[in-house]
Amino acid sequence: MSILVMKFGGTSVADPERILNAAHKVKREVDAGWHVAVVVSAMSGETNRLVELVRGISPLYDAREYDAVVASGEQVTSGLMALTLQSLGVPARSWQGWQIAMKTDATHGAARIDSIDTEPMLAKFDEGLHAVCAGFQGISPEDRIATLGRGGSDTSAVALAAALKADRCDIYTDVDGVYTTDPRVVPEARKIEKIAFEEMLELASQGAKVLQTRSVELAMRYNVPLQVRSSFSDEPGTIVCDEDEIMESDIVTGVAFSRDEAKITLQDVDDSPGVAAAIFGPLADAAVNVDMIVQNISDENRTDMTFTVHLDQFDRALATIEAAKDQIGYKGLVADKDVAKVSVVGIGMRSHTGVAQRMFAALAEDNVNIQVITTSEIKVSVLIQRRYMELAVRSLHTAFGLEAA
Amino acid sequence: MSILVMKFGGTSVADPERILNAAHKVKREVDAGWHVAVVVSAMSGETNRLVELVRGISPLYDAREYDAVVASGEQVTSGLMALTLQSLGVPARSWQGWQIAMKTDATHGAARIDSIDTEPMLAKFDEGLHAVCAGFQGISPEDRIATLGRGGSDTSAVALAAALKADRCDIYTDVDGVYTTDPRVVPEARKIEKIAFEEMLELASQGAKVLQTRSVELAMRYNVPLQVRSSFSDEPGTIVCDEDEIMESDIVTGVAFSRDEAKITLQDVDDSPGVAAAIFGPLADAAVNVDMIVQNISDENRTDMTFTVHLDQFDRALATIEAAKDQIGYKGLVADKDVAKVSVVGIGMRSHTGVAQRMFAALAEDNVNIQVITTSEIKVSVLIQRRYMELAVRSLHTAFGLEAA
Repeated sequence: MSILVMKFGGTSVADPERILNAAHKVKREVDAGWHVAVVVSAMSGETNRLVELVRGISPLYDAREYDAVVASGEQVTSGLMALTLQSLGVPARSWQGWQIAMKTDATHGAARIDSIDTEPMLAKFDEGLHAVCAGFQGISPEDRIATLGRGGSDTSAVALAAALKADRCDIYTDVDGVYTTDPRVVPEARKIEKIAFEEMLELASQGAKVLQTRSVELAMRYNVPLQVRSSFSDEPGTIVCDEDEIMESDIVTGVAFSRDEAKITLQDVDDSPGVAAAIFGPLADAAVNVDMIVQNISDENRTDMTFTVHLDQFDRALATIEAAKDQIGYKGLVADKDVAKVSVVGIGMRSHTGVAQRMFAALAEDNVNIQVITTSEIKVSVLIQRRYMELAVRSLHTAFGLEAA
Repeated sequence: MSILVMKFGGTSVADPERILNAAHKVKREVDAGWHVAVVVSAMSGETNRLVELVRGISPLYDAREYDAVVASGEQVTSGLMALTLQSLGVPARSWQGWQIAMKTDATHGAARIDSIDTEPMLAKFDEGLHAVCAGFQGISPEDRIATLGRGGSDTSAVALAAALKADRCDIYTDVDGVYTTDPRVVPEARKIEKIAFEEMLELASQGAKVLQTRSVELAMRYNVPLQVRSSFSDEPGTIVCDEDEIMESDIVTGVAFSRDEAKITLQDVDDSPGVAAAIFGPLADAAVNVDMIVQNISDENRTDMTFTVHLDQFDRALATIEAAKDQIGYKGLVADKDVAKVSVVGIGMRSHTGVAQRMFAALAEDNVNIQVITTSEIKVSVLIQRRYMELAVRSLHTAFGLEAA
């Protein structure tokens, strides 16, 4: 059985006209012979409206009730999409999370999918009935509605594609693919035809907000090829797949950036075992996501320790560090909320040397001062002053020859 | 276990402030020692919004998808109410139709309740957890969401009260009880303290729109005492109960009216067995609700047959009768869309004679011409010209001494 999962985000189902437009895309695939499972988000704006209602009652709300309220948005879209498909002559029915059943753990508001019972849906495929699934929602061990967290419909779609052993999962959104970098910063940015899961993960977590990181991780684990494509055109999008399926990778696939970073330096800390734990233990306990970490060269057993966090978490990080001052034993603290991170990403780095060197040279040529550097197998990231960010992205995009042909 | 069901209609939960107001009423009953099952409608306007979305897609929609879309309104309110109760310190959780489980037949859009599994809810009562149930919705034999039809939340509440063996079911609404007649027509109308189920049924089906007829039938069958009361005051409302619990009934309890009636007279039809079936069979097949029927005194085996329908169904009734003209064999047809029905209702009529006579005398005194009369054990109805309707209602209200003391 050839199964295709098609996921439509909130802007793609924002009103009845857009739902009809999306339904036409589904019909085209049905006419081409696919069994289709459509996964829908709430109509754009709806989730925010429902979240506001909940928050208005209590800032410390019961996440189970939050989930019951907020999941209703996808329920509405699933019914409307099924009706619209029927109006085009496509036999379809809606499936709520509890009907599928998409079983999750009990972490309401950010639940993880445990299992999906695909038998009932496959039986309906056999009868020629296509599926429209409410995204973002599952059912907890206590039979309560559990949502997967914001943007969770991507995760629903990929999990469903994995469980159904679908041939592909198409993510329809308001952009027409994954670009070498944000076209708003570099107008010459090029749409990428194929990108490996690992690269996509680095781009996603580095600030390219096309796909939820979690959904890419899931697609990589179960090897579900994704296609990111536009709801508003018929152009092919970007295929996200296993690197083996990409004939020859570019050395650098894309340039990612994250504008809102903050840097904290603890001066004159003891350079002894346990000091890192004394710093990063309390931060982890406070749920602060530390990104880059760099330790200066030690001088007489004293050192400086620098780390970065997202600007959103800066206040919490600072309060945590100040509260732990005695345990850590630092002399001075310097904070800089005026930094940004720029990264180059590419599978090809594994087999090609000199990428970091070419990156640093390009930045030096434009007089961009590098404050912190981190590297992974397929990525090099640098922290720089925020006002140089766009300049740096453009320089690197050109230096690695990423422009449209 | 002392269980109270409290149902709040759409205007009583129209916004967060009103939900809070309703929650305070629940808290008062919880503080008084009741285990409470709250049943909520959708926030007012929400069901209409969702119905419009469905109708915009297709006038011939799949009722199962309609139900999935429309039931989301009650889902939202149930979560918001549970959160609001929690914020007042009342332990509560929401229950959707499929969680309860409120099992219905497969008549989507107008489903009938087959059974309710109360064990899980009773177990939660034992743990001190009060219930907030999404009204209007159940689950079909195919595990699809099934709604009970407009106003179905009253029915949900009564069915739940019957299944839970609740002591009482309080229906909170935007009026403060059942009146001897519509106070907009007769400002002297009096709130009724106690009314028998049968009387309430006659009033409800005769046009007093306080309670859904179906919910009163259900309450009568399972002997669930109802209280109709206001969400916006603390006054006691009207108790609807078994007639045995009413010490002494008034002869006439109320005056009901229905403004939009139509009358059709078939002239010169054969007065022979089978002619009534020839007329009313096709009307029943066309789902036309015929109300009053009167056959004139026969003259040489020919007669006139008159019946009334609600104005909404007039066009369909007329088309049906004209299509069946040959089978019925009438000579002439006279239609009158300018009539209204006025009824006096009271259990006391069973043991008191002369009610009809007093009614006709009062109308004659005001020169109101009676066109059709029908009677039941506890009701007398007359059809009159529409423009006399308010006058007739006021006359009868006075004639039977129904004014506030």
